[in-house]
Amino acid sequence: MKIVIVGAGNVATHLAKALNKIDDVKVAQIWSNSYQNALQLANDIDALAIENLADIDQDADLCLIAIKDDAIAATIKKITGFKGLVAHTSGAIPLNVFDGEFIQYGVFYPLQTFSKQKEVSFNDIPICLEANTTDGLNLLKDLADKLSKRVLVIDSEKRKILHLAAVFACNFTNHLYALADEVLKANDLNFDILRPLITETANKVQNALPLAVQTGPAIRNDLATMQKHETLLENQPALLTIYKTLSESIKKTRK
Amino acid sequence: MKIVIVGAGNVATHLAKALNKIDDVKVAQIWSNSYQNALQLANDIDALAIENLADIDQDADLCLIAIKDDAIAATIKKITGFKGLVAHTSGAIPLNVFDGEFIQYGVFYPLQTFSKQKEVSFNDIPICLEANTTDGLNLLKDLADKLSKRVLVIDSEKRKILHLAAVFACNFTNHLYALADEVLKANDLNFDILRPLITETANKVQNALPLAVQTGPAIRNDLATMQKHETLLENQPALLTIYKTLSESIKKTRK
Repeated sequence: MKIVIVGAGNVATHLAKALNKIDDVKVAQIWSNSYQNALQLANDIDALAIENLADIDQDADLCLIAIKDDAIAATIKKITGFKGLVAHTSGAIPLNVFDGEFIQYGVFYPLQTFSKQKEVSFNDIPICLEANTTDGLNLLKDLADKLSKRVLVIDSEKRKILHLAAVFACNFTNHLYALADEVLKANDLNFDILRPLITETANKVQNALPLAVQTGPAIRNDLATMQKHETLLENQPALLTIYKTLSESIKKTRK
Repeated sequence: MKIVIVGAGNVATHLAKALNKIDDVKVAQIWSNSYQNALQLANDIDALAIENLADIDQDADLCLIAIKDDAIAATIKKITGFKGLVAHTSGAIPLNVFDGEFIQYGVFYPLQTFSKQKEVSFNDIPICLEANTTDGLNLLKDLADKLSKRVLVIDSEKRKILHLAAVFACNFTNHLYALADEVLKANDLNFDILRPLITETANKVQNALPLAVQTGPAIRNDLATMQKHETLLENQPALLTIYKTLSESIKKTRK
């Protein structure tokens, strides 16, 4: 199977490397709006970097579009008529973004957060698939099964929900880590001291539901502690608002 | 060394078990406002459950108070005059809560989230110490060094800050997991699908600062995706408020 990857960011990089390792799969071309990035990734996996989307190999079986959501629609227009299967990797973009542009198309959405510097094993990553034809779905399924033991067929509506939930569980969570760091930094304390706590907080919900393991002053309705915390945040109004909003939200989950 | 533990909740349980395993340390008594809980914990570690705080062993070297923050001040009054070292395990209560009640007192604050059902290794847990005398501090330090490789001496002001940062990094984070679960449940999707993402989100900041690894629509200023998410949350106004508040906060960190 010959694959073209459109994109050279976090998702594209990890997918290109993982896919290229599968027997009988070859990632042949990489395109990126930064040719430098395309060159670098292509170099890593012995593929060809292309500068122009018109140069896409028309014999490729799959063109995987792993770029920013808001660039997908415009990029599709530039490869209209591609004869293989075209799929994007986005949680938020519906399948019908491809309507009228291609014969076979689909979605290949790995529900994970990727950083370029950090290796990641696809084995545990849920991969959510969708396609407009059975053949297309089967092709994506064969590929996904070789990467991960958790492959799901999920339609655009449900995928949008999953993506939204992921924003809460991942993007917002990481931002809370950043706010914690901001609190520490303002008082000459190092983020390192929180790392074991962060690990354990994530570990706790691997075998339990988060509602069942909530701790802290808000769930105890410990008004005195919350009042002290609010006083500490007096000069950081943005943090104070978030503190109050989330504490109120936790209190509502008290039995 | 003979230790009395006041409390039989999450922190008390884990500390009692871990301390009792140290050579030359014996947790001799457990008190709890629930005698049943005291009995159960005492039974687990071959200690004596006491119903009345007046029955505390006056020969004990250390009385460790691991109860809800808002019960500490009143509980202290009931053991006034205890001759050994008295310490609490709270992040939010200052050392001076003990003033005038005891000769030697301190704080032994393990910066971690504990659940009764889940085993935890103290080895990596930062233990923050404070005491009113050098002897008291040394006693706590000896003990803490045997539990953990990360022992810190931190005053009440800094400990309060640490505790506040921990609320963001742990309690609020867990609540975001719960909100993600709420989003999924409302659409018949299972929390299980988010667990690998939650693990990786915590793993990513073990070797990086959270600001450097922020992902998601808000940091990309992807207005179309955020608009779609807000539409999805139209009928969940509490979630919508949190979505908007945290997205705005993330946007402010864009370079």
